[in-house]
Amino acid sequence: MSAPKSGITSLAPWYVRDQRPLYSHITTATTSHKIITFAGQVGANEDGTFSPNQSEQVEQAYRNLSQCLDAAGATPNDILKLTYLVVNYDPNNRVHRKPTTEFLKGHLPATTLIPVPALASPEMLFEVEAIAAIPEAPLKKVDVVVVGAGLSGLQAALDVQKAGYSCVVLEARGRVGGKTWSRDIAGGKQDVGAAWINDTNQIRMYELCRKYGLKTVTQNTMGRIVMEDPADGSFHTFPYGGVPEKEGEKGGVANMVQVRDLFESLCHKIDVSDPVGSCKALGKDYDKMSMEEFVTSEGGGKIAHGTINIWCKAMLGLEAREVSCLFFLDYCKSGGGIMAMRSDRRDGGQYLRLVAGTQSFSLSIASSLSPNTILFNSPVRNIEETSEGVHVTSARGSFLARRVIVSVPTPVYHEISFSPPLSETKFKLSRGTVHGYTAKMIIAWKEPWWRRFGLCGLLQSAYGTFCVTRDTSVDSQGLYALTCFSEGDAGRAWSRLSKDERRAAGVDHIRRAFGPFVGGEDKVPEPIETIEQEWWKDTWSQGCPCPAMPPGLMTEVGSALREKHGSVHFVGTETAYEWKGYMEGAVRSGERGATEVIQALREEGKSSAAAKL
Amino acid sequence: MSAPKSGITSLAPWYVRDQRPLYSHITTATTSHKIITFAGQVGANEDGTFSPNQSEQVEQAYRNLSQCLDAAGATPNDILKLTYLVVNYDPNNRVHRKPTTEFLKGHLPATTLIPVPALASPEMLFEVEAIAAIPEAPLKKVDVVVVGAGLSGLQAALDVQKAGYSCVVLEARGRVGGKTWSRDIAGGKQDVGAAWINDTNQIRMYELCRKYGLKTVTQNTMGRIVMEDPADGSFHTFPYGGVPEKEGEKGGVANMVQVRDLFESLCHKIDVSDPVGSCKALGKDYDKMSMEEFVTSEGGGKIAHGTINIWCKAMLGLEAREVSCLFFLDYCKSGGGIMAMRSDRRDGGQYLRLVAGTQSFSLSIASSLSPNTILFNSPVRNIEETSEGVHVTSARGSFLARRVIVSVPTPVYHEISFSPPLSETKFKLSRGTVHGYTAKMIIAWKEPWWRRFGLCGLLQSAYGTFCVTRDTSVDSQGLYALTCFSEGDAGRAWSRLSKDERRAAGVDHIRRAFGPFVGGEDKVPEPIETIEQEWWKDTWSQGCPCPAMPPGLMTEVGSALREKHGSVHFVGTETAYEWKGYMEGAVRSGERGATEVIQALREEGKSSAAAKL
Repeated sequence: MSAPKSGITSLAPWYVRDQRPLYSHITTATTSHKIITFAGQVGANEDGTFSPNQSEQVEQAYRNLSQCLDAAGATPNDILKLTYLVVNYDPNNRVHRKPTTEFLKGHLPATTLIPVPALASPEMLFEVEAIAAIPEAPLKKVDVVVVGAGLSGLQAALDVQKAGYSCVVLEARGRVGGKTWSRDIAGGKQDVGAAWINDTNQIRMYELCRKYGLKTVTQNTMGRIVMEDPADGSFHTFPYGGVPEKEGEKGGVANMVQVRDLFESLCHKIDVSDPVGSCKALGKDYDKMSMEEFVTSEGGGKIAHGTINIWCKAMLGLEAREVSCLFFLDYCKSGGGIMAMRSDRRDGGQYLRLVAGTQSFSLSIASSLSPNTILFNSPVRNIEETSEGVHVTSARGSFLARRVIVSVPTPVYHEISFSPPLSETKFKLSRGTVHGYTAKMIIAWKEPWWRRFGLCGLLQSAYGTFCVTRDTSVDSQGLYALTCFSEGDAGRAWSRLSKDERRAAGVDHIRRAFGPFVGGEDKVPEPIETIEQEWWKDTWSQGCPCPAMPPGLMTEVGSALREKHGSVHFVGTETAYEWKGYMEGAVRSGERGATEVIQALREEGKSSAAAKL
Repeated sequence: MSAPKSGITSLAPWYVRDQRPLYSHITTATTSHKIITFAGQVGANEDGTFSPNQSEQVEQAYRNLSQCLDAAGATPNDILKLTYLVVNYDPNNRVHRKPTTEFLKGHLPATTLIPVPALASPEMLFEVEAIAAIPEAPLKKVDVVVVGAGLSGLQAALDVQKAGYSCVVLEARGRVGGKTWSRDIAGGKQDVGAAWINDTNQIRMYELCRKYGLKTVTQNTMGRIVMEDPADGSFHTFPYGGVPEKEGEKGGVANMVQVRDLFESLCHKIDVSDPVGSCKALGKDYDKMSMEEFVTSEGGGKIAHGTINIWCKAMLGLEAREVSCLFFLDYCKSGGGIMAMRSDRRDGGQYLRLVAGTQSFSLSIASSLSPNTILFNSPVRNIEETSEGVHVTSARGSFLARRVIVSVPTPVYHEISFSPPLSETKFKLSRGTVHGYTAKMIIAWKEPWWRRFGLCGLLQSAYGTFCVTRDTSVDSQGLYALTCFSEGDAGRAWSRLSKDERRAAGVDHIRRAFGPFVGGEDKVPEPIETIEQEWWKDTWSQGCPCPAMPPGLMTEVGSALREKHGSVHFVGTETAYEWKGYMEGAVRSGERGATEVIQALREEGKSSAAAKL
């Protein structure tokens, strides 16, 4: 269930000076490999700027090369040949060594180092170019191809196989799980993507827990929430489950509660099977306005605006001004309303976590599939309907299928070339649906220092680096951590910092927010480990947790969301009717896609049987 | 009928700064492609010199790379990766950009630019290296493989298919036609290769005209010829069809006529089916002497020498000293004698042209072949006789054939490795047969200014850049042009100039030659367009119009000219009995090759049927 083994062989020549720990003298790939060449990658940041520091440029060049490898379905292990071009090369200070070692993780491609007087632009100090080779399997026939091994794709594949049809899953990454990804930290697992379920109205997830014996942890809600007041930026605390006891704006909390309750009541009037139609019955076009405009139109003050902005950020990675009010009403309705979705308690969106992390859901479903169902590092680039079936071309092989289930996020359809092209409505939907900026920084400490001061670990911050933090400790393993969400505009600004700067800014924010309530900023201990995940920079997600719609899009083309395209069906958490954006929604959408496909295959079977009579 | 589509795929990585108009970040080729690597190509001219101008070196480097691509059966579209090495790199003046754009024509390979302090030699200022990939089809079985889609190969393939045998044509270029190549100029077509036919003794060509409805233009012979006197270099004129009225050598014209008439009478005594044998009957070994020695031995003066040298140049691209007299006698006899071959009138070699250009002969025959008969950009590198048949390996695929017809020029056999090797006589013939230097520069003007002064556009020049020019206007299209032949020693010298210098030297020659007869050099208007074609530099022709033999070769190994090699047969205009070096000869040789092969296949069929009894 790991990434495919590299087909690259390293050879050591007789009597040529020893190979160094960074490279081999000889590498080969067999003829069943296809060659991938990459333009020289420099240390250009995403905005085209360059760090004046050569080491940072080397690191950034490898990040850029990684993105290129990802796009081609390759990994550092697939590199045949590396060439470094180094400006101001100093044999006594080989700045490329450490980042290269970290990048290659023990793989030793044939390598050449070329000291150069300059590169294409004067600010460039390092360039690395690569040639890679990946195996490419011959065309195979299969009943169903599923694109993507996230929860929705895996569930669809499982249902299709259970119905007796052959099925492969083509996964762009070297792992299953999509946005369920549980990474190692401080001796345990933490989820850098989806993290919570509940055991009441998320029945698919709870069934999976029971079926696969996955242990849960109840979210800690004992203690007080730290709040940065949206009105005056002051920090104060209030008990979990209550409302703020202080306010930087007179009457602001009551005003916020009023707007919130109105939103909740509207929410419950939305029909998830027909949000646009049910909105009409409300007599107001909520798809014309953003969430910000909604709050303004309902007389919301600073605290109402700030609070609702935090919802949009924490739930979609977007600012309130960027989200259609109707989309957000429908989104919240899918999880039982805004109060349920925001809740960390029973029936709420953030009630239970998994000791092993939520990726174990994906790993468990994958373990129930037939052997070799999943092909890793196989991004799909072409889906072509032909007279013989649907021709699906991935980096490592092509398939001729009767039906295809695409589980990638709606805004990521542009990575695939469809023939015939997507319908105009589907195309508009894909281009118009947006991903917010969502990153998690998980900070681990030796002990849960916040609890000693009666804090539950929850922070709601209007202006800081993190808009929300939560206690995601696994006490049974002695793992104590806060999961910190960097979202929306603040996240986008934070994203442009270097990795070290991002960490420093994050830890600093925790100190400033929690410090006043634990005896001072210096009483917040030094973390023992941090990990971060910027989903927006992730090639195959391009955002998190869920694609969202700006004003107007839902009315115009929202009906195309679950529409099939010839023999191609679409799943993914954003296409769910219940718990959109959550794992529950992903699994349910996978079931829906499988049902569509199985029915279509059965009907085709009947008609071909009839044709034979 | 165009070059094969490139199998190279470009990919854009998510989140890496925009690709530039010159390159892609990622390119791949599938496993059915073979990889071709090229040494770094520098701006070395053909004689090993370098322009001091970096831009010119860049252009020359791309020309050299183009030759390499040609040799491998690849095109710029097949390039996966380019690396530029630039001396004195200036990011504010990227001299490689314009030539690169012109070379790539929109294809975007992965690319790296490396500023370097120097290259292998101090005069080198630019180097480009490439990795390409071209599709390679699996082995196919076929009755007949024809190598080359010029007129002889196409005619052979058509006859073979008509006889009911399967046949493919492997063509090294991206087009059909070989030395029939009609290029765009001034809104019409002009032939940079073979240009003329007649409708009386070139019956195959005239049949093709009628069969495919190709419109002809009669060569203009109204007016006077401009002549540069071989004796004193003076320019004078005389009426088309007459003899020079002035002479720089007393009695020189009469002397020339005497030698010419002797040559013509000898010519008519040659038996084209046995030139060496029929020569013996003449009592003199004309194969021992060059054409120059012949003229000297017959008491030819300066004008006789100069005139006959112009024949050798215009008809073979060779100086009279380089051509065997017997070869030239036989060559002229094949077209009805020297007078007929030199004539631009009825029954002559230069009587009719095609409005659409002579490539339309090739395109027309190709259109009569079964679909997908021709594989382009597929140079053949190996022809191996095995127990299973003849294994023909081309750049893009291999074939197992019962018979092979090679239509490439005799001196170009060295581009193919034969197994078993060619017989010693055939090998000597191929190595000994030579191609002259022949280039055409076609110069277009707004109007046919020469006609206003009673000139027919024909120039015969003993010493100038062009040895002959002809009016190749297509009046019905308002296209007015002189086709100017640069040949032999003068051509070889001209060839070493840069393209701009060649153009300037050519236009200057026209001004100097025609100027005195049109009211002054400044009365020759500025051309509106020029094109040139140096056949000697062309990878797959390596010369034009026809391979020729130096003294002695014909006697020694001339009998091997049409000799088959195992199951491999040879065609091409130089193997014709009639109109060698002309399109008529090419088509007739193709028919002869097809007849040989069809007969062989039928006999094999009979014997295999007999074996079954």
